[in-house]
Amino acid sequence: MNIAALSHRPGTPYVCAAAERKVALRLRAPRGEVLSADVIYAEKFRWHEPERRQSSAMARICSDERFDWFSATLALDDDRLMYIFRINAAEGVLYLSEEGVSRDFSFELGYFNCFQIPAIHEEAILRVPEWLRGSTCYQIFPDRFDGDVSGKPFVNMKRDDLPQPESFAGGDLAGITRRLDYLEDLGIRCLYLTPVFQSYSSHKYDTLDYTRVDERFGGNDALRELIDNARKRGMRVLLDGVFNHCSDDHPFFAEVRQLGYESPYHGWFYIDGDKPDAKLRNYRTFGDVSYMPRFNTECSSVIDYFCKIGRYWIEEFGADGWRLDVCDELSHEFLRSFRRAVKAANPDAIILGEIWHDPSMWLTGDQLDGAMNYGLTKALLDLFADTPFGDLGARGFADRLTRLLMRCTDPANDMMLNLLGCHDTHRFLTRVGGDARRLAAAYAVMFFFPGMPMVYYGDEIGMTGGYDPDCRGCFDWNSDNWNMQLRETVKRLTALKRSPALAKGDIDIEAEGSFIKITRRHGNDARRLLLNASSCSETFDGITLPPFGFAVDGDIYSPVHSNDCKEELSCVNSKSA
Amino acid sequence: MNIAALSHRPGTPYVCAAAERKVALRLRAPRGEVLSADVIYAEKFRWHEPERRQSSAMARICSDERFDWFSATLALDDDRLMYIFRINAAEGVLYLSEEGVSRDFSFELGYFNCFQIPAIHEEAILRVPEWLRGSTCYQIFPDRFDGDVSGKPFVNMKRDDLPQPESFAGGDLAGITRRLDYLEDLGIRCLYLTPVFQSYSSHKYDTLDYTRVDERFGGNDALRELIDNARKRGMRVLLDGVFNHCSDDHPFFAEVRQLGYESPYHGWFYIDGDKPDAKLRNYRTFGDVSYMPRFNTECSSVIDYFCKIGRYWIEEFGADGWRLDVCDELSHEFLRSFRRAVKAANPDAIILGEIWHDPSMWLTGDQLDGAMNYGLTKALLDLFADTPFGDLGARGFADRLTRLLMRCTDPANDMMLNLLGCHDTHRFLTRVGGDARRLAAAYAVMFFFPGMPMVYYGDEIGMTGGYDPDCRGCFDWNSDNWNMQLRETVKRLTALKRSPALAKGDIDIEAEGSFIKITRRHGNDARRLLLNASSCSETFDGITLPPFGFAVDGDIYSPVHSNDCKEELSCVNSKSA
Repeated sequence: MNIAALSHRPGTPYVCAAAERKVALRLRAPRGEVLSADVIYAEKFRWHEPERRQSSAMARICSDERFDWFSATLALDDDRLMYIFRINAAEGVLYLSEEGVSRDFSFELGYFNCFQIPAIHEEAILRVPEWLRGSTCYQIFPDRFDGDVSGKPFVNMKRDDLPQPESFAGGDLAGITRRLDYLEDLGIRCLYLTPVFQSYSSHKYDTLDYTRVDERFGGNDALRELIDNARKRGMRVLLDGVFNHCSDDHPFFAEVRQLGYESPYHGWFYIDGDKPDAKLRNYRTFGDVSYMPRFNTECSSVIDYFCKIGRYWIEEFGADGWRLDVCDELSHEFLRSFRRAVKAANPDAIILGEIWHDPSMWLTGDQLDGAMNYGLTKALLDLFADTPFGDLGARGFADRLTRLLMRCTDPANDMMLNLLGCHDTHRFLTRVGGDARRLAAAYAVMFFFPGMPMVYYGDEIGMTGGYDPDCRGCFDWNSDNWNMQLRETVKRLTALKRSPALAKGDIDIEAEGSFIKITRRHGNDARRLLLNASSCSETFDGITLPPFGFAVDGDIYSPVHSNDCKEELSCVNSKSA
Repeated sequence: MNIAALSHRPGTPYVCAAAERKVALRLRAPRGEVLSADVIYAEKFRWHEPERRQSSAMARICSDERFDWFSATLALDDDRLMYIFRINAAEGVLYLSEEGVSRDFSFELGYFNCFQIPAIHEEAILRVPEWLRGSTCYQIFPDRFDGDVSGKPFVNMKRDDLPQPESFAGGDLAGITRRLDYLEDLGIRCLYLTPVFQSYSSHKYDTLDYTRVDERFGGNDALRELIDNARKRGMRVLLDGVFNHCSDDHPFFAEVRQLGYESPYHGWFYIDGDKPDAKLRNYRTFGDVSYMPRFNTECSSVIDYFCKIGRYWIEEFGADGWRLDVCDELSHEFLRSFRRAVKAANPDAIILGEIWHDPSMWLTGDQLDGAMNYGLTKALLDLFADTPFGDLGARGFADRLTRLLMRCTDPANDMMLNLLGCHDTHRFLTRVGGDARRLAAAYAVMFFFPGMPMVYYGDEIGMTGGYDPDCRGCFDWNSDNWNMQLRETVKRLTALKRSPALAKGDIDIEAEGSFIKITRRHGNDARRLLLNASSCSETFDGITLPPFGFAVDGDIYSPVHSNDCKEELSCVNSKSA
């Protein structure tokens, strides 16, 4: 057996505490080499008593080209656990303990080197709010969605202009409130607004005041109005928390620029010397952007301040949670404190982080609930945009999805914010050369994947656009210009997402030839996505699908290419796997 | 190449932030299959600019039977890093990224799936206090070390009795102060006292009052006297913090027993219902011991209380840190808060945890400095006591040591508290059948290992004893009964530990035939331990060593068997590897 492929650690994602007396354990094993595996376990202080040790068979839950993953969920009598794995392989029985792999395991001498979960604390338990299951999120860049432009002298673009970095289109929160019918009809249950707090810019990632909604968006009352109206429809509203940095004209930073060390806010930033100076670049910033100084999120006053902000908009305005900008640069201590503050205000409020990389170290129970799932975005881009019919193929894509699921625990997977793109990327339709069929297929995978799918405003009607600022165009409210088939597909998927299978079911991902099959199952409810990942029409199980066509439970969803398709598909490769 | 053996995660122990702009990266690879490896890296926001990407060759730092470990230390211009690994193998160049292993890596499309260190925060940096390097610790169970028994009616055992659980021998802190000459002569730089706070028992793990030293030990003044006198000799004093549980007569618990929910302390414990009842066992305890109720260390009042206790004894009495009892059952939040409190009181104070298992998840910079190194204890027991000349052999033992080092970062390894045994185990000499040569050899390995070696009181003179309470006998101050060769060996090792090589050098662990070679090197100072792990005399490099004999830099240290040796070694196996 390839012993180097065996892996377990007594932490995330191999251990998931579902409750104080319930724990799910995972084991990674070399593909096809483990015939069966058991967990042998006992309460920590009873481990030495043979009659107190139990064993539980593990189930193989998924596989990629190299590994099989096994899992067992244990119901415990105590919150303290000792365990090892017993593995049946062709060459006989092997044990996996903290010590590694061995042919024998001495329970008498083994107190030191079994695995342990010394105590299951609340801080390690991620709980998925019921409202999140089956919900679809919709991301809005408020300046570009809708709004009455009368009496707004700052508006400097027409709705069909290509936006520039300094553009203002005059969208506002009342414009969103007005469109709640549209969103409800689309099946949206959750809104994520890019920042709404006072700022000079249209994007508002350079905050001037965290305690006030920008007047150009309608001020605090407009947010209250939006949240109240959304709530009446059962819709949640997530705010964008930009706590990593602020505008260099934020009063706190401005005071430090004036007073240097004399200001109590000096320690709130990373300033090398007395006073920050944009020319000297003697302070840390977001990226290399001198007008966005970075907060020192290890400073306890900074932590306290943003915990108050985090609570305020939940308690006073009814916001349902936060998407945290540049979340991975915030200190872990900041995030832990922020979580306590938010969950104290509303245990059902959620915290999602902007993390472009492996988010598992933030999804340990004490920090985020979920993260923007850029790993999924990347897999979808690789399949549909960057290497279509290339190396990846159905098999490779299925493996990518499996590995994404195996790097986080199940509840974390259920709270990921899945996206095809956002205000920081090209629009997906542009990345696939305007091919709405591929966009629709990507949506189908995303909706079938565990987590909350997110639609970037306008993607559902076929909006295109390259990197910022192009991707931030105005929503086109003239429905004559909409890709109705695409919109209808999204609508069907939002409805499907609410089924028990997609809302909370198990997942099974398979590849067969050029086909990817994703099955979700909860109790009697089972749903199957079948996707043809080849450049030719192919038939599977009596269902013939065009290139990147897909079917749900045998029902074929295939939007034709949109009008502005730049790239025609041709049958270049009959099998991609 | 066995790709499943390749491993890296952007966290402990694969990533170690040595400072805000300095980071050490490790890569695990299949043994012998990687010809060379480089890190390709750039500042996070410059990753897409080819000219900003640098590469750094990795050095192979160690190997076991399956893996080679490579390492590179990067000096950075920014605190935010992107990186991937480029691996040269027989089959060509491979890349390791967050996505896994690939033949190519697209830097243009690769923002999503390179590895990243999004920001290096202070919370992730473990700093080793200078005083710790080269220091040897000595563990004292105060009731059994020394003390004037006059005027102590509670004393119920003679010094040469085998102790019972309820025994009191009358040792006290003044007795320790009186023996500082002895300890200084032995080369001790740090004392670790089992609990000294008020309690009914002699072991005092069932605390009644965390704010007062037990009168039987001489009260607060005796502790102050001990610490002051130790300090004059440059010796540090560590206290035992038993914060996981207390006595069921502790006033807080007693109040809850009386008032139930009415008591503000109800939430300090885990009580199922109104009032705790030992008969109903409706509250959580240490182990199964009903007289030691467990604190809820997620309760913020509990955290605040013990943070104050943690600070108090450092600020008011000059204690140099804490050994935390049952540390792994405390919440991580407790430990993070406790660290902030202790380091604010004295940045050079240290926090060591009682953790019998893999301690790496507590050694991430924000919790403990080090842990009791039971992994090392277990390896030493396996080699010297439980399977001498058995499966393990020199090669297996060397591999065990290597794996112990590779599961934690370098600074964490430097702060581990290495031990052969303590008040919770058999004495090591008893475990090796009274063979002082094996005890001495185990000491030699322990002193050569990174970390602070700890001598359990009396082990150095040849005291024996089985599991608690036998291992807690009284120190025999009649030097006629001492194993002088053993004591001399310990003394030589404590002196050697202060050499630059053993205090802070690199380590190289090798096995050759039945010999284990451990070389430490710092600048020009190099020290080599040679140990014969076979049951026969063997010769290496012109040095002939008896079974379990060892030499340091060619100088043979071989205490004869102690008088009460129960087991004779015989040459059963000429080569054990």
